[in-house]
Amino acid sequence: MIKDYENIKVIGFDADDTLWVNETYFREAEVKFGKLLSEYETLNRIDQELFKKEIGNLPLYGYGVKAFVLSMVECALELSNYNVSTKTIEAIMNIGKEMLNKPVELLDGVEDVLKKLSQNYRLILATKGDLLDQERKLENSGLTSYFHHIEVLSYKREVNYSKLLNHLDINPSEFLMIGNSLKSDVLPLVNIKAHAIHVPFHTTWAHEQVSEKEKNGKTYKTLNSISELLKLLD
Amino acid sequence: MIKDYENIKVIGFDADDTLWVNETYFREAEVKFGKLLSEYETLNRIDQELFKKEIGNLPLYGYGVKAFVLSMVECALELSNYNVSTKTIEAIMNIGKEMLNKPVELLDGVEDVLKKLSQNYRLILATKGDLLDQERKLENSGLTSYFHHIEVLSYKREVNYSKLLNHLDINPSEFLMIGNSLKSDVLPLVNIKAHAIHVPFHTTWAHEQVSEKEKNGKTYKTLNSISELLKLLD
Repeated sequence: MIKDYENIKVIGFDADDTLWVNETYFREAEVKFGKLLSEYETLNRIDQELFKKEIGNLPLYGYGVKAFVLSMVECALELSNYNVSTKTIEAIMNIGKEMLNKPVELLDGVEDVLKKLSQNYRLILATKGDLLDQERKLENSGLTSYFHHIEVLSYKREVNYSKLLNHLDINPSEFLMIGNSLKSDVLPLVNIKAHAIHVPFHTTWAHEQVSEKEKNGKTYKTLNSISELLKLLD
Repeated sequence: MIKDYENIKVIGFDADDTLWVNETYFREAEVKFGKLLSEYETLNRIDQELFKKEIGNLPLYGYGVKAFVLSMVECALELSNYNVSTKTIEAIMNIGKEMLNKPVELLDGVEDVLKKLSQNYRLILATKGDLLDQERKLENSGLTSYFHHIEVLSYKREVNYSKLLNHLDINPSEFLMIGNSLKSDVLPLVNIKAHAIHVPFHTTWAHEQVSEKEKNGKTYKTLNSISELLKLLD
């Protein structure tokens, strides 16, 4: 094991796009939404307006599929100048229901990594989605037994992680976070002197992207695949 | 202190309608929703259909304001036979936004009780609402400092409480739950041999009501006001 990680007691795993596919489904949903409203606007404008709506609603609605659906409906009303049909509203609601009913598609190597690491570490799932939806996915994933519990954070900012460490009764140096989002899973941890490892997913939501400036001077490791964790920690 | 409670280490408080007003706002929202759809159906039918819709969507959407708004929109589409106007859809969405922006109205005696009990017990907030919304309310309530953390449960069933106790690393006999819902805050605890005290609120959502049969043979204490806790525990 690399010396940096010898104090680690608890490992937090992000869920969406770290353990299983998620962002892909949001992108698919956006394509469907664009088609439903294509008589009113260009796809590009629809994409931009939906993104603005999501960001505007974030403080009130938070993350997750339900928030996304509410933003889509609002966006459809406004983009169509209130001319959208009620059947289209229903179709938008159904996009959300389909997303919530998707089977869970594990990323490569995930189960093997969790199985091995759970023998030596306390593993927790640290996510900012909807609790119910994340519990459903965890249950369908067959990974439940590897995790001590699910920790749902309203935001993944430094203050939220500090509260989490306080709640776990551990020091920052004893915590390692693994995730696909630099903004949510890596940089806040580095800033509070905990450990973090970045495992990128091929698609990143615009809101989760960080500038070179934000990354500047921050030390964290990036792996190509979650399986490489075993070499670092075993 | 009464002998029953001498082992208690952690006290869990339900949030909505135990610490602050909540159900009242849902009832107000239902009245507004009924008025918006009054051209299509009787108020009584609208109430019944909305309730059915909420229960039907519970496994997919869970609890909280966002789930409630999605159910209202769906209900409006169906009850109006898709004739509802897009302005009415927007008005329904705005009911949700108003709910999420409501100031927090503490129930009598709450702050005093938490202040005193937090000196001798670890207090946690155990709720099944939306994490973001509950965090907002907790922050606005001024009660944050009395709680060790917020525990959001997707459901408040025996299995969820058992997991919570496991996560807290305590025995059932060391946990006391306080809440207004017999179904969610009291009976599941009694069934797993933990402690529970019922502090009723004047309004209970139909889904939270329990039959005499379910209560039969269960031992729990009911208080008229949360302030009476101090006599039992101090």
